[in-house]
Amino acid sequence: MHNMTPVERFPSVRSLTRPPSTPSTALAEEPSSREDRNRECSMHEALAAVIFMGQLFSLMPIIGYGPGSDPRNVTMRFLSVRFVYGCVTLLIMLTLIGMLGAYTAEASSFGVQQASSLVYYAIIVFFMVELMLLARNWSQIMGRWYVDELPFRSASYRPPARTLPFHRMVNLIAFSVMFFAFLEDTLNFCSAYKLNELHIRYCPHRSGFWKNFFHREHPYVLRAIPYHPVVGWTIELTMRIAKFTWHYVDVFIICLSLGLQRRFVQFNERLERLDGQPQSQSVWRGLRLDFVRLTELVAFVDERFSKLILFSCANDMFFITVQLFNSFDLKPITITTVYFWYSLGFLIARCFLMLFVVSSISRASERPIETLRRFPSSNWNLDLRRLCDAVATSENALSGKRFFFVRRPLILAMAGTIITYELVLLDQVKKIPDTTKDCTF
Amino acid sequence: MHNMTPVERFPSVRSLTRPPSTPSTALAEEPSSREDRNRECSMHEALAAVIFMGQLFSLMPIIGYGPGSDPRNVTMRFLSVRFVYGCVTLLIMLTLIGMLGAYTAEASSFGVQQASSLVYYAIIVFFMVELMLLARNWSQIMGRWYVDELPFRSASYRPPARTLPFHRMVNLIAFSVMFFAFLEDTLNFCSAYKLNELHIRYCPHRSGFWKNFFHREHPYVLRAIPYHPVVGWTIELTMRIAKFTWHYVDVFIICLSLGLQRRFVQFNERLERLDGQPQSQSVWRGLRLDFVRLTELVAFVDERFSKLILFSCANDMFFITVQLFNSFDLKPITITTVYFWYSLGFLIARCFLMLFVVSSISRASERPIETLRRFPSSNWNLDLRRLCDAVATSENALSGKRFFFVRRPLILAMAGTIITYELVLLDQVKKIPDTTKDCTF
Amino acid sequence: MHNMTPVERFPSVRSLTRPPSTPSTALAEEPSSREDRNRECSMHEALAAVIFMGQLFSLMPIIGYGPGSDPRNVTMRFLSVRFVYGCVTLLIMLTLIGMLGAYTAEASSFGVQQASSLVYYAIIVFFMVELMLLARNWSQIMGRWYVDELPFRSASYRPPARTLPFHRMVNLIAFSVMFFAFLEDTLNFCSAYKLNELHIRYCPHRSGFWKNFFHREHPYVLRAIPYHPVVGWTIELTMRIAKFTWHYVDVFIICLSLGLQRRFVQFNERLERLDGQPQSQSVWRGLRLDFVRLTELVAFVDERFSKLILFSCANDMFFITVQLFNSFDLKPITITTVYFWYSLGFLIARCFLMLFVVSSISRASERPIETLRRFPSSNWNLDLRRLCDAVATSENALSGKRFFFVRRPLILAMAGTIITYELVLLDQVKKIPDTTKDCTF
Amino acid sequence: MHNMTPVERFPSVRSLTRPPSTPSTALAEEPSSREDRNRECSMHEALAAVIFMGQLFSLMPIIGYGPGSDPRNVTMRFLSVRFVYGCVTLLIMLTLIGMLGAYTAEASSFGVQQASSLVYYAIIVFFMVELMLLARNWSQIMGRWYVDELPFRSASYRPPARTLPFHRMVNLIAFSVMFFAFLEDTLNFCSAYKLNELHIRYCPHRSGFWKNFFHREHPYVLRAIPYHPVVGWTIELTMRIAKFTWHYVDVFIICLSLGLQRRFVQFNERLERLDGQPQSQSVWRGLRLDFVRLTELVAFVDERFSKLILFSCANDMFFITVQLFNSFDLKPITITTVYFWYSLGFLIARCFLMLFVVSSISRASERPIETLRRFPSSNWNLDLRRLCDAVATSENALSGKRFFFVRRPLILAMAGTIITYELVLLDQVKKIPDTTKDCTF
Repeated sequence: MHNMTPVERFPSVRSLTRPPSTPSTALAEEPSSREDRNRECSMHEALAAVIFMGQLFSLMPIIGYGPGSDPRNVTMRFLSVRFVYGCVTLLIMLTLIGMLGAYTAEASSFGVQQASSLVYYAIIVFFMVELMLLARNWSQIMGRWYVDELPFRSASYRPPARTLPFHRMVNLIAFSVMFFAFLEDTLNFCSAYKLNELHIRYCPHRSGFWKNFFHREHPYVLRAIPYHPVVGWTIELTMRIAKFTWHYVDVFIICLSLGLQRRFVQFNERLERLDGQPQSQSVWRGLRLDFVRLTELVAFVDERFSKLILFSCANDMFFITVQLFNSFDLKPITITTVYFWYSLGFLIARCFLMLFVVSSISRASERPIETLRRFPSSNWNLDLRRLCDAVATSENALSGKRFFFVRRPLILAMAGTIITYELVLLDQVKKIPDTTKDCTF
Repeated sequence: MHNMTPVERFPSVRSLTRPPSTPSTALAEEPSSREDRNRECSMHEALAAVIFMGQLFSLMPIIGYGPGSDPRNVTMRFLSVRFVYGCVTLLIMLTLIGMLGAYTAEASSFGVQQASSLVYYAIIVFFMVELMLLARNWSQIMGRWYVDELPFRSASYRPPARTLPFHRMVNLIAFSVMFFAFLEDTLNFCSAYKLNELHIRYCPHRSGFWKNFFHREHPYVLRAIPYHPVVGWTIELTMRIAKFTWHYVDVFIICLSLGLQRRFVQFNERLERLDGQPQSQSVWRGLRLDFVRLTELVAFVDERFSKLILFSCANDMFFITVQLFNSFDLKPITITTVYFWYSLGFLIARCFLMLFVVSSISRASERPIETLRRFPSSNWNLDLRRLCDAVATSENALSGKRFFFVRRPLILAMAGTIITYELVLLDQVKKIPDTTKDCTF
Repeated sequence: MHNMTPVERFPSVRSLTRPPSTPSTALAEEPSSREDRNRECSMHEALAAVIFMGQLFSLMPIIGYGPGSDPRNVTMRFLSVRFVYGCVTLLIMLTLIGMLGAYTAEASSFGVQQASSLVYYAIIVFFMVELMLLARNWSQIMGRWYVDELPFRSASYRPPARTLPFHRMVNLIAFSVMFFAFLEDTLNFCSAYKLNELHIRYCPHRSGFWKNFFHREHPYVLRAIPYHPVVGWTIELTMRIAKFTWHYVDVFIICLSLGLQRRFVQFNERLERLDGQPQSQSVWRGLRLDFVRLTELVAFVDERFSKLILFSCANDMFFITVQLFNSFDLKPITITTVYFWYSLGFLIARCFLMLFVVSSISRASERPIETLRRFPSSNWNLDLRRLCDAVATSENALSGKRFFFVRRPLILAMAGTIITYELVLLDQVKKIPDTTKDCTF
Repeated sequence: MHNMTPVERFPSVRSLTRPPSTPSTALAEEPSSREDRNRECSMHEALAAVIFMGQLFSLMPIIGYGPGSDPRNVTMRFLSVRFVYGCVTLLIMLTLIGMLGAYTAEASSFGVQQASSLVYYAIIVFFMVELMLLARNWSQIMGRWYVDELPFRSASYRPPARTLPFHRMVNLIAFSVMFFAFLEDTLNFCSAYKLNELHIRYCPHRSGFWKNFFHREHPYVLRAIPYHPVVGWTIELTMRIAKFTWHYVDVFIICLSLGLQRRFVQFNERLERLDGQPQSQSVWRGLRLDFVRLTELVAFVDERFSKLILFSCANDMFFITVQLFNSFDLKPITITTVYFWYSLGFLIARCFLMLFVVSSISRASERPIETLRRFPSSNWNLDLRRLCDAVATSENALSGKRFFFVRRPLILAMAGTIITYELVLLDQVKKIPDTTKDCTF
């Protein structure tokens, strides 16, 4: 009974993924009263703060996602401030890419630095657009997720033991990563500031400190338009906002994965609470259906987000390789050195964290097979057997457009590839010219 | 009933792959009247336009393949214009290879350029011969295919939702690829023309524009025979026709794969239409037999075409690597640069498209396992179970002679290999001498 | 009955891994009298000598682990001599790392040698801390192990045929490896001694032989504190003790793996003794539960020790690569050459042995599937079937934090990676300056 | 009944691999009369000519292996001519290795050439010893094989369709490979002869043609002992005999694999002859037991021969890499060039053939799963199900000590590795000094 009513309430959601006539039993016991403090919160609720944080950086321009809201009511309004904010950022970024492209085409040499700048901006724009598209379908995505995770918020399943409540855990991880990203941004600014000071001291021909600063940071802009403090600061600010998109996508994938992984943990913990005791066939049928539902949810999430995962992984691998390659250069001042190594360390750590959390889904989904072996053969029935088969044969892992599945060994494979590339590139190490003492511009 | 009768009508086909004693009865209900506009068309019908296109380039010299024809009546006549056309092209190519071989053996150096020229011609000749051999067995291949896909054209299965009709989709993809190939050929000619102009301006000793053009493009021919405009233009034309073989083989593999993938999609959509409702055992038996039949069809197609796939993949990988390696050279004029990058982009896109479509078969054949989990245990029966087993254990993927199976991760592996080779070769980058200003010949 | 009772006696152990309500009764039939000479000994007993050896090198500071002791009574006392010994060693090592770090930061160049020194010390400290943490939980680990292997020490299973008794085999392998490690250490000292002699002869400015010796071996210490014989010898001794941690961890992993592998061998040999004869369902149930228990033991051991395995493998791979890279240098005197090649050979052999033994678990756990096929279908029952499924689907292999599973092909993959890295690094081979004739310090 | 009697007759064979009390049914219908021309011959009979060929090259010193002999009567006598012949060859080779080692240690440089010479001799000696050990156990190995393949020689199975009789196919492949090996040897001699002529013409100080020839070919021998024609020719002859060991091992592995693969083909063809018709359970039981028996035979053969396979693959890969690396050198005269490329081509072809045939076992053992899907569900029974499970889960592939399994994708992986190594080594290409004009010795 309890699985079906939400389906009725979200016909648009289910009709896309399942014909509407699935046999259904009315859901009566949606976790009704809010008095239960220990209640497992939904993905929709857990993401609220993370989405709000994204909106500060002009991403995910949706409304109606707050705590207590209904996932069906989430919408994206084209005339809202958030959407306009997002579009303005996107437009500025596109203009910058155009300027950078023109600047690069003019320049005689095209090396690793130019390529990585272009890839950097292009991937940010891609992420912005992709998140906007997801925002448009957000009520549909969260609506389906809400329905599929309902059983796991009922009394039969409990929140995983010895972990934080779901929304706290999501917020803790998301805000920690963003805090370190903010630190990285600050260090980046300090390094640029100090380098500018050094440069000004060296080449006194420049009229103002900030003009020089801007010149050094975004030379391609000044090729196209004359300097004005307002323009300078707008672009500088937009760039720093846009940079967070990079971090935000990884954080976003981490949060989604935490939600999926948690459900598998709950499933396995319920199995362990059953403790090898014989159960009625209807209990096994319920468990089987819950597992199949989870498997389908993973497939659904993978379909919607695997493009994001693919590009996020490619992006991280590319920049780790480039940064490691740059590590052979000497840095002119200490703060630059500090910034460089912090930035590299943070990049590796963020990428590792993302892959680790995503791969935990796959790990968590394998555990029930071990628990199921403990149930006695006297309790054997068709639903238990089909559950065993489902656990053994289903591929519960997010993927990068199915080109790769994010499981633990992938992390090792990626690390190995980066090391190989680095060793091969060792021969190509050449100094990038130190621009501190270059007064030609 | 309806599954068995075609076997009767194609004894020669089935007897090769299955012992002749399969129980059989007369086929009565072939989708009879043509009034059904929405009817799913057969592989045989869908390929007609693609085969005709191939015949323009002297490939697949068969007759009787037109719309409405019977796949059993397709034949290859040794005295037909098409066959003679194919043989002449083949002979000219063989002569050219001989000349090129002699020219290369005389030359002191043997580098990447010489090797890639030889491989280029050799692979074209291999493809021509292979397609001719396939043409000879075409009635057998299409006959079997026709029989095996009959159930999927009956009323129980419908064409996949939200896609073009089969023959339109095949034609759309095939002609689009060929159009871009034609564009590439045109750019190639323009680039050669412009380079010749430049060369003529530089070295005024040559008697005529076209003789010089021909000299630059095919120096090894002029070593062996004296120049004559008719010879020159014949060879130039033959070369351009032969070049399309390269593209055509990829297009051909794409079309075949579309046909196989579509059947798996139809199978899964029918399962989804059943919507988890209990079905009689005979329905499950029918579904199981249809799936087994599809699996056998994939194995049969793989047996016949996997050599083509193996060499096509090897060829694409080799030339992507060589072209990327050449990308470090400076190009003398703009049109050459445009041609070079367009050609490289087209090559990568074509190869990716081919691998993507072929790997979609494997993806589509995995989906039913998820759908089957939704059927209730009350409907469990032996045929449903065997269907589950068949879906879980069968390897529905085309392969390159079973050295590799074309699935999504293969694409990533190939990309990784190309990048590794490129990085390793970075040290070897040397300028290929610019022949524009070389007046010695 | 006999499988459940031990659970009762180790509530603290099981409650961590299983809900406490498992049905349980009193354990009566622990292999009672010691008169059975042929009795299979427990992991706890077999490890006694190995742990004692570790304690000589300040590792595993536990008490109550001797033969005949109860695994539950093993404890780590913070005020025992062993613990203080361990802490002192650890502190000295940490001080040395600090000094080395400061010394490296001061030096202008940071190359492979500096990196490998730092990694070397860091990994030793990591191993020391990790083993101390394991020591703290030793009674829990060994308690669970003791319970899970009880059935395999009963009369139904016999010790594997044609092998040494368990504790003898463990001791033989452990002490052999440690003997070769000791030989390596001796050669290292001789080499250093001879090099010092050579240096003294060359640069007569040094006041004493041992001061010079110490100076050459640990220059970073003399940067920080003045030389005194007591300090010198303490540090020299601590370093040599610490170095054994490196070997000891590999030995430790080997011994644990021997224990797990042996149980699977026993299981398979019992199956083979049954000889395809029909057995009652209760026999099959017992066999199935024993196998599931073993599978869970492997998972438990993997959870506790996989961090050690991960770092041990990474460490071995890193140093094999570095040593092979160093093999291109000329060595100044014969004993250094002998030491170098012996050291490299020993390193490779130790690493190979470790991987081989660990991967034997996986191999041994696959064998029963072949034996089970010999039992006639007339004896088919649910427990036999579930046993077949359990053997076929369980992953009985230790892993490195699940980033990789230690199976046979892993060894080949690691060897291949090392060869690739070595070939790539071939270009970077530069002579490390010969310090024998460098009198500047 | 029919499976068991041979076991009775070979107690020593089976007791090693199975407890002697296996339930048995008396074998009555061993293919009795020799009048059946079409009878499938046993591995033992098929190998007779191949073993005889080996004995010409001092390998496999067994007696009683001829056609019509009983595999149990094969023995190795320590006082037979064959054994003495083998020992003498082995001793000479060991002496040569000693001399070569001493010569290499004296020489200042140790490069790829020296290493490959040592590896070359070492691997030949290893193969000789390994084959001698196999010869000692030959009656046991062939005895077991004979028993296990008995059902496949009975009337129920027929020889595979459209192939040569077994012994003819084995002989054809074995003698073809050996013929090409002989050609390679001849070319090698011609090349050495011509190079010697050239050298003599250049440096007239040498007393005789053959002394100079010998000096050039085996300089390390003349360091140790003075030249004498008898010594020279003995060593030259022994070396050429020993060289065939290299080829012979590959041929031997090919023949064994043909035997195993053929049985799987027979099994599948019998299944196809059953043609989806319902069979009695006893037929399925028989089929299942035959398949299990084959699986065990593969495991047994793998256990005995996988060391040979491992070293043969490693050897082939090493020498292909070395030869490809040498291909960048210029060759002084034409016959040397011809020899070099023929030798490289033959090496690659032999290695590919070996891997291809061995991997065919795995391919052939997978086919029955497809055939079994055609049997109707009405015929479903426990033995058919267990047969399906056995086919799906058993790993029927020879391996290199289980470090790798020889399946089709392995060939691609090896090719990829060789190409990668070659590309990486491209930087290291240096000319090997041309010794034709070096008159210092």
